[in-house]
Amino acid sequence: MTSPLHPILAPQSVAVIGASADPTKRGFKAIQGLIRDGFAGAVYPVNPKEQTILGLPVVPSVEALPEGVDLALICTPAATLPDLVARCGKQGVKGAVVLASGFSEVDAAGAELEQAMLDAARSSGIRLIGPNTSGVFNLHSKLNLLALQNVKPGKVGIISQSGNMLLSLALEAQSNGHIGFSTYVGPGNQSDLDFADYLQYLAEDPDTGVATLYVEGFKQGQRFLEVARQTALKKPLVVYKSGSTEAGQRAASSHTGALAGSYAMNLDLLRQAGATVVSQSDEILPVAEGLSLLPNAQGNRVAVLADGGGQATIASDRLSEAGLELAELSAETRDALRQILLPQASLVNPVDVAGSSDADPTVLAQCLAVLNRDENVDMVFLVGMFGGYSLRFDASLEPAELAAAESMAQLQQHSDKPLLVYSLYSHVKPLPLIRLREAGLPVYDSIEHAVKVMAALAERGVFLRRAAAPAVSAEIQSGATQVLITALQAGRNLLEPEARALLRGYDVMLPEEILVRDVSELDAAWVQLGAQPLAMKVVSEDILHKSDAGGVKLNLQGTDALLQAREAILNACRAYAPQARIEGVMLTPMSRAGTEVIIGMSRDPVFGPVMMFGLGGIFVELLADVAFRSVPLSRDDAAGMLAQIKAQKVLQGARGAEVVDQEALIELLLKVSVLVQNHPQILELDLNPVIARADGCSVVDARVIVQSEAAH
Amino acid sequence: MTSPLHPILAPQSVAVIGASADPTKRGFKAIQGLIRDGFAGAVYPVNPKEQTILGLPVVPSVEALPEGVDLALICTPAATLPDLVARCGKQGVKGAVVLASGFSEVDAAGAELEQAMLDAARSSGIRLIGPNTSGVFNLHSKLNLLALQNVKPGKVGIISQSGNMLLSLALEAQSNGHIGFSTYVGPGNQSDLDFADYLQYLAEDPDTGVATLYVEGFKQGQRFLEVARQTALKKPLVVYKSGSTEAGQRAASSHTGALAGSYAMNLDLLRQAGATVVSQSDEILPVAEGLSLLPNAQGNRVAVLADGGGQATIASDRLSEAGLELAELSAETRDALRQILLPQASLVNPVDVAGSSDADPTVLAQCLAVLNRDENVDMVFLVGMFGGYSLRFDASLEPAELAAAESMAQLQQHSDKPLLVYSLYSHVKPLPLIRLREAGLPVYDSIEHAVKVMAALAERGVFLRRAAAPAVSAEIQSGATQVLITALQAGRNLLEPEARALLRGYDVMLPEEILVRDVSELDAAWVQLGAQPLAMKVVSEDILHKSDAGGVKLNLQGTDALLQAREAILNACRAYAPQARIEGVMLTPMSRAGTEVIIGMSRDPVFGPVMMFGLGGIFVELLADVAFRSVPLSRDDAAGMLAQIKAQKVLQGARGAEVVDQEALIELLLKVSVLVQNHPQILELDLNPVIARADGCSVVDARVIVQSEAAH
Repeated sequence: MTSPLHPILAPQSVAVIGASADPTKRGFKAIQGLIRDGFAGAVYPVNPKEQTILGLPVVPSVEALPEGVDLALICTPAATLPDLVARCGKQGVKGAVVLASGFSEVDAAGAELEQAMLDAARSSGIRLIGPNTSGVFNLHSKLNLLALQNVKPGKVGIISQSGNMLLSLALEAQSNGHIGFSTYVGPGNQSDLDFADYLQYLAEDPDTGVATLYVEGFKQGQRFLEVARQTALKKPLVVYKSGSTEAGQRAASSHTGALAGSYAMNLDLLRQAGATVVSQSDEILPVAEGLSLLPNAQGNRVAVLADGGGQATIASDRLSEAGLELAELSAETRDALRQILLPQASLVNPVDVAGSSDADPTVLAQCLAVLNRDENVDMVFLVGMFGGYSLRFDASLEPAELAAAESMAQLQQHSDKPLLVYSLYSHVKPLPLIRLREAGLPVYDSIEHAVKVMAALAERGVFLRRAAAPAVSAEIQSGATQVLITALQAGRNLLEPEARALLRGYDVMLPEEILVRDVSELDAAWVQLGAQPLAMKVVSEDILHKSDAGGVKLNLQGTDALLQAREAILNACRAYAPQARIEGVMLTPMSRAGTEVIIGMSRDPVFGPVMMFGLGGIFVELLADVAFRSVPLSRDDAAGMLAQIKAQKVLQGARGAEVVDQEALIELLLKVSVLVQNHPQILELDLNPVIARADGCSVVDARVIVQSEAAH
Repeated sequence: MTSPLHPILAPQSVAVIGASADPTKRGFKAIQGLIRDGFAGAVYPVNPKEQTILGLPVVPSVEALPEGVDLALICTPAATLPDLVARCGKQGVKGAVVLASGFSEVDAAGAELEQAMLDAARSSGIRLIGPNTSGVFNLHSKLNLLALQNVKPGKVGIISQSGNMLLSLALEAQSNGHIGFSTYVGPGNQSDLDFADYLQYLAEDPDTGVATLYVEGFKQGQRFLEVARQTALKKPLVVYKSGSTEAGQRAASSHTGALAGSYAMNLDLLRQAGATVVSQSDEILPVAEGLSLLPNAQGNRVAVLADGGGQATIASDRLSEAGLELAELSAETRDALRQILLPQASLVNPVDVAGSSDADPTVLAQCLAVLNRDENVDMVFLVGMFGGYSLRFDASLEPAELAAAESMAQLQQHSDKPLLVYSLYSHVKPLPLIRLREAGLPVYDSIEHAVKVMAALAERGVFLRRAAAPAVSAEIQSGATQVLITALQAGRNLLEPEARALLRGYDVMLPEEILVRDVSELDAAWVQLGAQPLAMKVVSEDILHKSDAGGVKLNLQGTDALLQAREAILNACRAYAPQARIEGVMLTPMSRAGTEVIIGMSRDPVFGPVMMFGLGGIFVELLADVAFRSVPLSRDDAAGMLAQIKAQKVLQGARGAEVVDQEALIELLLKVSVLVQNHPQILELDLNPVIARADGCSVVDARVIVQSEAAH
């Protein structure tokens, strides 16, 4: 209850500025809604021209308000706002909901007006919700400034950048009849208060059991992720993010930079912070409800109990697609089921009772109890006609069905394994299903939604078990800083030998390299590097894309070969970039063959430093099969990146590839995370390729793009 | 109306064998349902012990039935069936619905019983539905043998292998209130009549506007695909196929064989036949309804009209994910919209009216008419609050909203472009939405469903435009047949030189090859092949996996290299397979570099010959990024295979690859299609790799597995 927004979002007094006697106006409807719902605090309509509105005495001006009103709903046009906000602030109003549009979302003049309003708020101490917001409600405080009808108080808190999305959720809840809401906020332009502020409020609000967000874009992504993580440790957080079709590719100097900012990156970072991401709008409420009512799963093994083969099959399909497993039932479980069920029942998961429950639906509850006890089972999923037996077969079955519902409710109450019920009859709302819902067991009207909830419960279980893992950190290496400052002062990015030195400063192992500035040094270098096949690359601050410039030669043996290669490289680079300052060529031993991966970092304008991992070549460039995490990484984050990519099997030795040392890659990810966290001068970093093998990994090419400290 | 099943599925008379006076029994409920619904034909309860049931006189035995009853519903246990079916057949009963389970789905004894029943049916001329079926209904004939309540007659025909799925659809239709059904059949074990038979009936049934199928598995896949294609030419066909999690990989001698049979192959073949495949159970009815009511789309360009930004964004996301495009609106359209809308409206697709319709919802109808006229627009999609304006804003808006609904209905009636309406208020069923539905315009309760319908309308449009394209065929090459017969007689698969000869017989261009049986022939071969880098492969009927055996050497230059390579190959192969009969080694010029693809064929036990196309290496083996089509291929089928794969960009030159000659690949696919169609002796075929380049493609390796004619 420590949120600074508590007075504003659970106010004791509300002023409606621009109150109206016209029943079609928002300034009327809001007051009507407060009176209708029985808001317990004071309501002050403010209007210079009216005497009373809906029986309430009207206050003629902001200055005539009592000192320290908690919340003002401002219904007047954009142009009035800077002045009104300043006056409200002066009068001690704590927060204002600004409905008007016509600010930064429209044009530059609007943005100026918004800034003036924000300045007025900052100097007078009032906080702003909006502008361009659909408003707020807090149903437990009977504060419903949207004057929405037919919404009931409940556990679901909502922050939605679309008023229509809120309306859609409210209508969906009205239609299914069993979901209620706590607080809603439309963040609008997020001029002052933003997503992170509202989420912090919901995290601390005892009336909110689950926070759900519809997000188009974040303003302060890094702060949001931190608040999201703190929230997710306390209660579930469901996010529906739009923008999947936005151009994800950016102009950038690194592969990582080009892929960062994508929709996929947004989802990776949200999940890393513990949010449950849904990808269809009709999943928001079912998933939020399930997460708020059911215990988290300790694993991903599901036992399915069905009273018909078809839907058992469909459930299996959807479970597998969602990354969940059909639990392998223990011998005890199968024996116990055999006692309960008819001989034709299938005792292999999915369990099909095959008519055993037609005459006695309590059989289902007995089976669920058996499945719940099995140590190989993390979640139990009932699929089929339950709730409709008396409708489908015979009315005389209702008492047995109600008894079964009671048993299921009891079972869930005494178990920490989730029990999910999908019923064909969900839409019909028969009494047994109403009883289940009253007892706090959600009932789903589609197999898909129930499966999505199970996946979310399992994912949240993993998050909570891992949440204690600290991000890795290490001391700042002053030598490393010096390399960066030197480059910055020279107005250039790191040369490859410098990038390698930087990495070595953080204990990254790299093959030895020699920078050859003069042709006379080639012989000594050949000997010093052990007279083995070498790679040669141009070293020039002006040539970022070395291969494109013809600046790379591989597999060179002997000094003659080195001599020719150097000539060829210098000629090609001079042709490619005649003005380029060339330091020389760098020689390194050829890396042994292995699996090429890429590890990179980019500073996202919204989310700050993010790291990327993927397999090299086609996988990154064509399939964008990469994983992102925000910096700093925990060990679990790093391991999660390896586990996430679709081509993960390649790391495990698919297609005759070597089984690679994943631990070495995780270590490398963590070292790079520490490096980039310590040095804000690094704008982008690509280690590409890194060659992963059974006995470790080695960085073959390192590119570091720098920025002045001022830029971050 | 020519379906042989018409007397059975639209019967004039029904016998209920195993009729019962017990109200909980199926033999009672079916009669009750027929009476309740007003079935116009004769109903004959058959039971040796009862006199009357529900007021109907009971017939004591099958032999006491009048001659030629159309349909018998048999409610007695499995063991009675062979005898009963024989007696029914003798009495001239045309068809029987066999409810009993306990046949081939259970065990070998059940399978024997099923065969005995089938023999009885075949010899007496009666047709069987089931056994192990949930039953049938034909609501237009008031024949409802499932005695389902609250289902209404309509256009949706259903064939479902799961009774619960039918029940689920019926309950969903009951809940949304606007979808009706024509005929339902549960195919059960498909002992006699199968999916193809029922689908043919629905195709010819004038009461059925759309056929929907829930399929777990097909028995005669090839016939089904042909019937599906014929059906899809007449009316939409929606298929929900379960089994996505079945092990798709089979033991096979070819890559194609290993990947065929997969769920993905099933979906490819269904789509090729013109079916609309849905992947979520809650999409079945919305998609079926949309396809049955709306015109097909002539392209994939959608204009979105929204009264709120959030859902416009979500619609854009989902459209793009579904492969649809946001239409680029013409200048005329934007001008016309500008006349109608307020200045703050967004005139770029998605069009956001931004409050322009709040006080007058007819504005939406005006905009829809403008968008509908735009030549760049194939479909128009209204998103938002329409239908709820009077609920959300003011009751006085209802007349305008009803007028808008009337205009929209008119618009659709006079247009061949689909108009889709998603409303937040769909669940609430306000009057304007009821009017839309009465006028034959579907209203969707989720953006996702509406988008799925648009994708289906566009896909069906493509199918119908392409449906005229003939499959390619060519004369059987007698030389080719001889090669196959020789190998079959020798009890072996084709040697590679034979496979190459076979392909040449169908005008497939291959690089020259020489089979070297003796070391003395190497010199001449080197000269004959042009003294250029060569590949050498072992030729042995006993070595299928040549690389595994060490039987391949590449890039050989000069006779010394050839000599050494031959030694090495022979030694390796003798070590690998000491008993192998080795014909010699085959020499071919090295192929120029290019993009490796695989073209293959496998005879699927269900669907017959299917062809596969994919990119080589990782794409096939790790990502299973392949496309399947059933043989024979049309040119559109072949082109569709290239267009379908995820790595399609590689063919277009991504990552610096050469832009390949796709036409050459299409030609090759068509030639192979003709080849395998003409020669049933070919069991599996892999051309792997085929190297595709800008100037054509060349087959580098060909493997042909044969089967005796008896096997097909």
